Amino acid sequence: MSGTVIQTIERADSDVIDGLASCGVATVHEAQGRTGLLASCIRPIFPGARIAGSAVTISAPPGDNWMVHVAIEQLQPGDIMVLAPTSPCEDGYFGDLLATSAQVRGCRGLIIDAGCRDVRDLKEMNFPVWSKAIFSQGTEKTRLGSVNVPIVCAGAAIQPGDVIVADDDGVVVVAGNDAAEVLKEARAREDREVEKRKRLAAGELGMDIYDFRPRLEALGLKWV
Amino acid sequence: MSGTVIQTIERADSDVIDGLASCGVATVHEAQGRTGLLASCIRPIFPGARIAGSAVTISAPPGDNWMVHVAIEQLQPGDIMVLAPTSPCEDGYFGDLLATSAQVRGCRGLIIDAGCRDVRDLKEMNFPVWSKAIFSQGTEKTRLGSVNVPIVCAGAAIQPGDVIVADDDGVVVVAGNDAAEVLKEARAREDREVEKRKRLAAGELGMDIYDFRPRLEALGLKWV
Amino acid sequence: MSGTVIQTIERADSDVIDGLASCGVATVHEAQGRTGLLASCIRPIFPGARIAGSAVTISAPPGDNWMVHVAIEQLQPGDIMVLAPTSPCEDGYFGDLLATSAQVRGCRGLIIDAGCRDVRDLKEMNFPVWSKAIFSQGTEKTRLGSVNVPIVCAGAAIQPGDVIVADDDGVVVVAGNDAAEVLKEARAREDREVEKRKRLAAGELGMDIYDFRPRLEALGLKWV
Amino acid sequence: MSGTVIQTIERADSDVIDGLASCGVATVHEAQGRTGLLASCIRPIFPGARIAGSAVTISAPPGDNWMVHVAIEQLQPGDIMVLAPTSPCEDGYFGDLLATSAQVRGCRGLIIDAGCRDVRDLKEMNFPVWSKAIFSQGTEKTRLGSVNVPIVCAGAAIQPGDVIVADDDGVVVVAGNDAAEVLKEARAREDREVEKRKRLAAGELGMDIYDFRPRLEALGLKWV
Amino acid sequence: MSGTVIQTIERADSDVIDGLASCGVATVHEAQGRTGLLASCIRPIFPGARIAGSAVTISAPPGDNWMVHVAIEQLQPGDIMVLAPTSPCEDGYFGDLLATSAQVRGCRGLIIDAGCRDVRDLKEMNFPVWSKAIFSQGTEKTRLGSVNVPIVCAGAAIQPGDVIVADDDGVVVVAGNDAAEVLKEARAREDREVEKRKRLAAGELGMDIYDFRPRLEALGLKWV
Amino acid sequence: MSGTVIQTIERADSDVIDGLASCGVATVHEAQGRTGLLASCIRPIFPGARIAGSAVTISAPPGDNWMVHVAIEQLQPGDIMVLAPTSPCEDGYFGDLLATSAQVRGCRGLIIDAGCRDVRDLKEMNFPVWSKAIFSQGTEKTRLGSVNVPIVCAGAAIQPGDVIVADDDGVVVVAGNDAAEVLKEARAREDREVEKRKRLAAGELGMDIYDFRPRLEALGLKWV
Repeated sequence: MSGTVIQTIERADSDVIDGLASCGVATVHEAQGRTGLLASCIRPIFPGARIAGSAVTISAPPGDNWMVHVAIEQLQPGDIMVLAPTSPCEDGYFGDLLATSAQVRGCRGLIIDAGCRDVRDLKEMNFPVWSKAIFSQGTEKTRLGSVNVPIVCAGAAIQPGDVIVADDDGVVVVAGNDAAEVLKEARAREDREVEKRKRLAAGELGMDIYDFRPRLEALGLKWV
Repeated sequence: MSGTVIQTIERADSDVIDGLASCGVATVHEAQGRTGLLASCIRPIFPGARIAGSAVTISAPPGDNWMVHVAIEQLQPGDIMVLAPTSPCEDGYFGDLLATSAQVRGCRGLIIDAGCRDVRDLKEMNFPVWSKAIFSQGTEKTRLGSVNVPIVCAGAAIQPGDVIVADDDGVVVVAGNDAAEVLKEARAREDREVEKRKRLAAGELGMDIYDFRPRLEALGLKWV
Repeated sequence: MSGTVIQTIERADSDVIDGLASCGVATVHEAQGRTGLLASCIRPIFPGARIAGSAVTISAPPGDNWMVHVAIEQLQPGDIMVLAPTSPCEDGYFGDLLATSAQVRGCRGLIIDAGCRDVRDLKEMNFPVWSKAIFSQGTEKTRLGSVNVPIVCAGAAIQPGDVIVADDDGVVVVAGNDAAEVLKEARAREDREVEKRKRLAAGELGMDIYDFRPRLEALGLKWV
Repeated sequence: MSGTVIQTIERADSDVIDGLASCGVATVHEAQGRTGLLASCIRPIFPGARIAGSAVTISAPPGDNWMVHVAIEQLQPGDIMVLAPTSPCEDGYFGDLLATSAQVRGCRGLIIDAGCRDVRDLKEMNFPVWSKAIFSQGTEKTRLGSVNVPIVCAGAAIQPGDVIVADDDGVVVVAGNDAAEVLKEARAREDREVEKRKRLAAGELGMDIYDFRPRLEALGLKWV
Repeated sequence: MSGTVIQTIERADSDVIDGLASCGVATVHEAQGRTGLLASCIRPIFPGARIAGSAVTISAPPGDNWMVHVAIEQLQPGDIMVLAPTSPCEDGYFGDLLATSAQVRGCRGLIIDAGCRDVRDLKEMNFPVWSKAIFSQGTEKTRLGSVNVPIVCAGAAIQPGDVIVADDDGVVVVAGNDAAEVLKEARAREDREVEKRKRLAAGELGMDIYDFRPRLEALGLKWV
Repeated sequence: MSGTVIQTIERADSDVIDGLASCGVATVHEAQGRTGLLASCIRPIFPGARIAGSAVTISAPPGDNWMVHVAIEQLQPGDIMVLAPTSPCEDGYFGDLLATSAQVRGCRGLIIDAGCRDVRDLKEMNFPVWSKAIFSQGTEKTRLGSVNVPIVCAGAAIQPGDVIVADDDGVVVVAGNDAAEVLKEARAREDREVEKRKRLAAGELGMDIYDFRPRLEALGLKWV
């Protein structure tokens, strides 16, 4: 419901969050059963960033970034803002001034299903943003939205306090309560991949490592 | 009307143009009342360029780049070519040979609501292009278009001689007659932002600097 | 037809392939009569790569990357995998483990009309991919497809063994039988362009070099 | 989580559901505070249908319609199936055979963020579908999904048992618990509109009915 | 510039306007030199309407339809409203209440580069709309825009008072001053087509009527 | 290769073609192993048509419909024209005059990966078209293309003489040599579906008819 700011949200353990960041989006997505990805149209405004943090969610009207100011007051170190407009919009809700304010409060980045501007400055500040568009269109401050309510952002349902992981592969959300378990599984997956990578690098084939041939033949694959 | 080359256009003062370049797209867009942006699908083919110049406009048939040659003859140092196809097209109207020719005449870049190719070479030459697509499709030289007529490029109405500003945020057009005034307002805006940035960086909140709370409460925002 | 792996394909001469790589996509496209481009939505996941190789084609069901493993077994040094899903899909069929396996067999890259993930790792490994999307969505291994059958990938008809050329401009396919001829024409084109580039860089106009004025006037172009 | 079929869901009162159908999508959307719309890409496959029903949700893998069969067994008269693929897909999950089976169980229609086929037959059967695409691509039955779990369909979060309203304007979801209240507000809105419509039809202006002029002038609107 | 309502605009002669309606979009577009089309994404919300009228232009903020009320006061019989949002938006700016008000003032329809709702009612009222989307998203009344200023709508530059022609083929704009001339040429074109249609219907080939063979052969076309 | 008109193509038996028309797109697609569909963006310009015919293929430059005239001369009764532009284009290549000429030669319709215009007239003439866009943009006659060469149209590889089937579900292509066999399988499929439809209409579940439960349980599906 529009017009509400939830001031208290539960955040996951910071070690867990940092662990998820180091695993990266693809691994975390796999580790939680191939769920939680935001749509592929959400892209980093510059390459190379890899972050995780607690979601401070923002539901904002089209073309109105007032709620970003409201959200910044709610930020704690390690948070990531996640903004979904209430209808499709690519206006530039966010630029270097807001980033300055967010960064000083310890915010690690922004995920936005809309536009972003001042990308040169944001890159220099090393404040990463994943957005649907890069677009300078200015926004107003006349309408209410909400902060820290459940949102759907780029196709993913997000609760305030959920863990957001973002890197060059895109963005994934992990339910706050599942974060520790997902990290455990993600690390187990990484461990399993070390061995596989070594064998593959040595020239072994996935066909042999995973013993695919019998199943493929049973389904009728023909080598000719 | 197709088939016309206007050889004399009025250009803005070069100091004003260079001033607008240093302000950048977002600031210039704001300074002229949040107008003039080209659609967000127009993206730089490589990051980091920031230019401004006088628009030499090109209206070209789909898949025909003959008018680019015609336009190059009309270029003066500090100009930017702006090409709109007469119907949607993403063919590669422009590559390194045309860039060589344009660059030697002092052209600062190209804005094109269509395709561009030879991006590796263009980057090496430091000839920036903002385009809708990167696409190698070759074009022909069989149909007329026009040079230096009013066009609509990526949703923005552009007159020959208007000032084009382009950077990583996209592209904005400033009416030639308004350029000096817009620059003044853009600089005033930059000055105002210096102070704001300092306060935000020191940890003050936009909520307080702009005194948003009373207005938000009056509209019914609830903190819970 | 689904369920077939062709193990023997004809590849073009490796010198020809390497020659085409050095010419690049735009020149090769021109040299073969402006044909063979894949759609412009197929973009490199990182800039700067320029490769050519023999197509090992993969027809894969949506969301199923089993056939990539099957294809890797068929790879020879100098090959490029080309994957077309049997219906539109942007799942992440390919990541760093498969790249490790492909690279050790001499594979030069992947062209995929779907998604790719682990882009940071792929960049570090210098394994280039041109894809429709960057998307981490995991894929399964339950359905058959085919390897080394004719496919349509991003709008281009591709036969196994055709030469694929890919760089920052996109991707072009050259029929295996035409490769030597196309290379000859591509080099001739490059030679012709050296001279033109020199003249254009010296300030001569295309209008004069190509003697466009009489034809333009005949068609009715007016300079005013 | 994939692989679960919830067999017991709470449905709203059938009178409430039918009342919401008669109000239509736009009114219901307004009545619940301008929320709940599915994305505009979800369109009816034929015009004129207007339905409401209880959501039986389906989470299905790309290109696999097995879970539709599973869901049909869970249908009760008055239900509407709502299918979201686990990654973007436009395959034809649904056609006339499945519609025959669903219709005989009292199902009122299907909402699907993917493709549909046999549209001529579905129209003749008067089985309405709102879909992202009309596409005949056949699907398989090899992978599990889930039935009656929370999903995000075309940008809207949907719980099993929520009320779905669909007509030529698109699709809106109403939380099951809110349905009675939303209906009340929707009818009140309809009542208010009767009077307004009469006054507008008589030639009165919204400007006068709503007394807009003072507010517009206060904000600075100029009539010239 | 935002915040202005121009109350006096020049309209073309009503006979000319009605004549253009009967010629239809494709013919009018041809008659004025293949210019003036709005983008193909602007589609009628129901088939069969064919109208022409004088443009009352509306520049409106994203998600705010206040200016539609302001524009309705400016309508005269025979007018068509043309709305362009100041940034991309598909909210439902217009529905049956506004249509009631516009229709009673003699308005013939709406062209909108955004969304429309209540399409069933609009069809029953026979109030045609050409829009980018059908979407129920409600809009607000908090921001100013302008009425009867020059706009760019779906890629076409439109002046208030220009003639708008719309039918199942889409929408075209004719400059007010050119309308009489364009009608004359459109009718001449229609006359020429009567004869051609007769000959083609009798089995003559365009190849022969237009004597294409010599030109095709000269360009090198080969029949094999 | 551009500039060639193949005058002799092999057509499938007319009884087979008509049989495929009566089976419809979805059934034919299934009958040939789920292949051959054109992309879902190719839509009928009016509902209700269902045709099949022999493909007369057209490869045409962007914005140039000259080759349509050339192709019409090659038409035989029962043919369907299939046009692919050499680069993406949505111009209106085809309207009522060309349809008059094609229809008098027995042509059954047009499939075009570009634009179409005069849709009201085409509907009145009952000349069906499946196109990517409805757009009036006029085209020229200055460039060569080819007729009856292999093309890729909307993602499907098409040989001249292949059978095209088109209805409200879209378009599918059947290789000429496979047509008789595909018809046989399509009819067998229809026969099998009669029985299934009867059982489903009587209230039997697909779950039981196909005995899905054991396989679903084996894969781990849980009913809770």
